[in-house]
Amino acid sequence: MEKIRAAIVGYGNIGKYVLEALLVAPDFEVAGIVRRNAQDIPEELKDFEVVSDIRKLNKVDVAILCTPTRSIKTYAAEILAQGIRTVDSFDIHTQIPDLHRYLNEVAQKYNTVSIISAGWDPGSDSVVRALLEACAPKGITYTNFGPGMSMGHTVAVKAIEGVKAALSMTIPTGTGIHRRMVYVEIEKGHSFEEIAQKVKTDPYFVNDETHVLQVECVDALLDMGHGVNLTRKGVSGKTQNQLFEFDMKINNPALTGQILVSTARAAMRQQPGCYTLIEIPVIDMLYGERSELIKHLV
Amino acid sequence: MEKIRAAIVGYGNIGKYVLEALLVAPDFEVAGIVRRNAQDIPEELKDFEVVSDIRKLNKVDVAILCTPTRSIKTYAAEILAQGIRTVDSFDIHTQIPDLHRYLNEVAQKYNTVSIISAGWDPGSDSVVRALLEACAPKGITYTNFGPGMSMGHTVAVKAIEGVKAALSMTIPTGTGIHRRMVYVEIEKGHSFEEIAQKVKTDPYFVNDETHVLQVECVDALLDMGHGVNLTRKGVSGKTQNQLFEFDMKINNPALTGQILVSTARAAMRQQPGCYTLIEIPVIDMLYGERSELIKHLV
Repeated sequence: MEKIRAAIVGYGNIGKYVLEALLVAPDFEVAGIVRRNAQDIPEELKDFEVVSDIRKLNKVDVAILCTPTRSIKTYAAEILAQGIRTVDSFDIHTQIPDLHRYLNEVAQKYNTVSIISAGWDPGSDSVVRALLEACAPKGITYTNFGPGMSMGHTVAVKAIEGVKAALSMTIPTGTGIHRRMVYVEIEKGHSFEEIAQKVKTDPYFVNDETHVLQVECVDALLDMGHGVNLTRKGVSGKTQNQLFEFDMKINNPALTGQILVSTARAAMRQQPGCYTLIEIPVIDMLYGERSELIKHLV
Repeated sequence: MEKIRAAIVGYGNIGKYVLEALLVAPDFEVAGIVRRNAQDIPEELKDFEVVSDIRKLNKVDVAILCTPTRSIKTYAAEILAQGIRTVDSFDIHTQIPDLHRYLNEVAQKYNTVSIISAGWDPGSDSVVRALLEACAPKGITYTNFGPGMSMGHTVAVKAIEGVKAALSMTIPTGTGIHRRMVYVEIEKGHSFEEIAQKVKTDPYFVNDETHVLQVECVDALLDMGHGVNLTRKGVSGKTQNQLFEFDMKINNPALTGQILVSTARAAMRQQPGCYTLIEIPVIDMLYGERSELIKHLV
């Protein structure tokens, strides 16, 4: 069997878990890791090619983008222009349609495939939301996140002057409403009350119930577990009160890394263009004989 | 907008709910209903064409098969041979691969599309099972059914001599193991003990914990609610203990009817061949502008 050669672009938290998922996938091999500073090679990468430009890697079938979300667009377009497939977990929901349109043009121009927003939300949760609309077209879906750390909110708190370390936890209170529990370590000479006030009036927090707590050591609180509870109550045909619930408790970057790898497999099986997960058959994400998968899963 | 013209083939319990779902779908119109006895027209069908043969209907885009599972194969092949798409909720899990292979040949020969096993299990549950394998490739999935009425088990009890009416409820006890609660109305002159013994040794029941109870009136117990609790505990990459749970409490034939109609829409969008739900993009099941759906659901 010829293996799928995947490159990891960006080696932060997600990149590390993507590498683990690639190493246990029977049909993949690691083509290499692309880092800005290719001289900085951590111990666990010493057996792999580490380069600063994907063009230095030999025969890449698919690039798994693990860079910050805001640089996905640029990286994806550059890599697609090499005729290399890309997958990413771009997670700014409001910007997905634009990215989709743009990368669709690029992918078609270079006769290759891009699958975007392939983490867990957006990503696998999106597939569940779409499926539940097919099951009950009228109704309301609530996506409740947490308890778990919000990366975006944590970064926003860290940016406030006088904050030494921070953690913003997302706590679901139901019907898609969330409480923010913010833990901060304060630099000497700064006032906790002032910082707490700045957090609560920050655009990230101003619309949510937000509690700010001062702690000795934020690091002692860190845990990468996260969760989702997604509910839909709706109408099938003319029948009311159809109830659906999807729940998960997961290691956040590990799940993102795994879904990216499953999606990289699916990227090998699509026609040129750009896709989100709701636009591809779920079976394309799975390893194994198609007829065996149907027998086992349908 | 040109509407999708759907025919309902078989007008029993599922057929009735398919009709309701078609009537509320903005992009469908009812081409007609096919019944063995086209003279027998219930009140609610008086505004529709009711025929004994689908060839008597004008321009059918897709036929929604609501006949008993065992006759799906024959009906589907006949209708596909007219160049008409078919969808069904064929539910004998072990026979799905054969049906898939056979109808794939027929559909390709007549340049049309068949989507099979498109109810809730097999069907939407299959999509969830496949998605969870993409999220955590190693691990165990348990599908727990109920509490709800099992059609197959109820029919098996009714076939026993001396049983006037019966209801077999499926009760989940976890890890995919089910208890059977069987309620029977007995004809005069028959022994409850003997009938209970026959139920418990019937192939449908012999491997499950089965309780048989005698009641005055089975009809007073009938409720078409059903449920599923589907769990997966597995490994994403090298990270253990990823926990997923999908739960629903639904009207059984209403959900099947709705999924069949959503699937009929998807059938309009596939290349010739036969598919199960895990082989088609979920977005194809939904009504609406693709870009709007992506914006709203991803």
